[in-house]
Amino acid sequence: MISADPPQVYSAGTFDLKAYLKERQALVEAALEASIPVAYPEKIYDAMRYSLMAGGKRLRPILCLATCELMGGTVEMAMPTACALEMIHTMSLIHDDLPAMDNDDYRRGKPTNHKVYGEDIAILAGDGLLAYAFEYVVEQTKNVPAEYLLKIVARLGHAVAATGLVGGQVVDLECEGQPNIGLETLHFIHSHKTGALLEASVVSGALLTGANESDVARLSRYAANIGLAFQIVDDILDITSTRDVLGKTVGKDVAAQKMTYPRLWGLEKSRQEAERLVAEAKAELAVYGAAAVPLQAIADYITSRSH
Amino acid sequence: MISADPPQVYSAGTFDLKAYLKERQALVEAALEASIPVAYPEKIYDAMRYSLMAGGKRLRPILCLATCELMGGTVEMAMPTACALEMIHTMSLIHDDLPAMDNDDYRRGKPTNHKVYGEDIAILAGDGLLAYAFEYVVEQTKNVPAEYLLKIVARLGHAVAATGLVGGQVVDLECEGQPNIGLETLHFIHSHKTGALLEASVVSGALLTGANESDVARLSRYAANIGLAFQIVDDILDITSTRDVLGKTVGKDVAAQKMTYPRLWGLEKSRQEAERLVAEAKAELAVYGAAAVPLQAIADYITSRSH
Repeated sequence: MISADPPQVYSAGTFDLKAYLKERQALVEAALEASIPVAYPEKIYDAMRYSLMAGGKRLRPILCLATCELMGGTVEMAMPTACALEMIHTMSLIHDDLPAMDNDDYRRGKPTNHKVYGEDIAILAGDGLLAYAFEYVVEQTKNVPAEYLLKIVARLGHAVAATGLVGGQVVDLECEGQPNIGLETLHFIHSHKTGALLEASVVSGALLTGANESDVARLSRYAANIGLAFQIVDDILDITSTRDVLGKTVGKDVAAQKMTYPRLWGLEKSRQEAERLVAEAKAELAVYGAAAVPLQAIADYITSRSH
Repeated sequence: MISADPPQVYSAGTFDLKAYLKERQALVEAALEASIPVAYPEKIYDAMRYSLMAGGKRLRPILCLATCELMGGTVEMAMPTACALEMIHTMSLIHDDLPAMDNDDYRRGKPTNHKVYGEDIAILAGDGLLAYAFEYVVEQTKNVPAEYLLKIVARLGHAVAATGLVGGQVVDLECEGQPNIGLETLHFIHSHKTGALLEASVVSGALLTGANESDVARLSRYAANIGLAFQIVDDILDITSTRDVLGKTVGKDVAAQKMTYPRLWGLEKSRQEAERLVAEAKAELAVYGAAAVPLQAIADYITSRSH
């Protein structure tokens, strides 16, 4: 394990998640801002930056930083991986929004990438972000052994490829207009489309410190639980929220006859299930004591959020 | 440097390039065939395999293997990187062929990926291949130090991102219907769209052996020269060949009012320039003696090929 500073001490009673997220978001925004300098041909850099800097909760980078710290690492050593995760996430959003896919006009309250730059550039902006993410994590990470970094590269690739979010998106597309798919298929979609990269965010934070297999497995279970809870809450918000609050088109799942958790279970049972998953996620981390307070608070935040 | 066997001894007079390429192509085909086992959801694996196994010269993998051997390495240690290069190349072909990009119906004599699987799956097949390429090179490479592998990951990312083939494709798209772009822009397009990955193919073969900077720079110049020559010959063939020989639509450059080398220089000067570049590429490798014969013969092959 590599650590310059001892893990920060938190207390569940006094921990201010809002302030914590705000501080971390600002760190991530600054790092992302610096991560892609504009060069010739400017249009592609502009397109990549347009979606990368379009706001969002920066949940994946923050999870990576928090897990790295929990395992005795530093924000500094995790920041390049955190940025790479957000680049990959942004790639998946740009490609998912394309007319040939989900055909979305708005994302985070702004026109989607292809609405601004055209479909061709949007496809290339996604490709560019994905490829650059791997270069970036390798070139920018300091004070982490090469063996650990290779594990992170492999994990990121696995989380994006057909074994991860690409596979999830394929099944999601196949199931469009099929309102009667079962729970197993619905779980497959979300554990891959959303869950795989959330898990990689948490696990890569741990791998940066050379965490052992048992810690990685525990953190992986935490991530799988909050990933599923996150999706259930997303489904609920698509029904109960408005475009102004959510910053994207709402009611799309119903319109597209998509299977969702509320459709399968009803709103009330969906809420209960999300809460159960979050409680389990938090319990996984009890073994780390007060050091796990931020990750536990993030788990709580997922079920309480309104957008 | 890591080497089990001494470099093979070749002789320029007796070297049989045709037999060499045939043998290497067979090795690469077998490795590619085994590289992507089909799993659920089958459709995306089928789509990735459809384009990956659609033939082609396998020039990038063969360059990688040959350079690794030249620098004292083995085919075995280079094969995962060789496969990753072909996965990345295939991704770029699938995405370039999309209706929003070059809108091609045929590739290597077969319907393009999106004609068979639909645009959505074609986009995802490209994304999946790109992400998997990074996982594959890390997971499958044996007996290469982690530091060397990280350099390869970074180099591959750089060759694909906006600094590489994505940037080249953007400028290519911008220049469509502009028949009067200058030589500098034309060079930018091809040194990025085609050249960057060819260079990465050669350089990564050297990096696997821990080659020093001066060797890497020399091999990089060799690759840049054959990359440009390759493109000039491609432009010439688009004018002089037929679909049956080429396996793809011909005359597209003229129809699309694309600037090409023959358009800029005429056919005769284009042929001369390609030959000059190849001669320079071969001269770069003279320092390695007979061990460089395969790479030199590949350089010759580029100007003599008819498809």
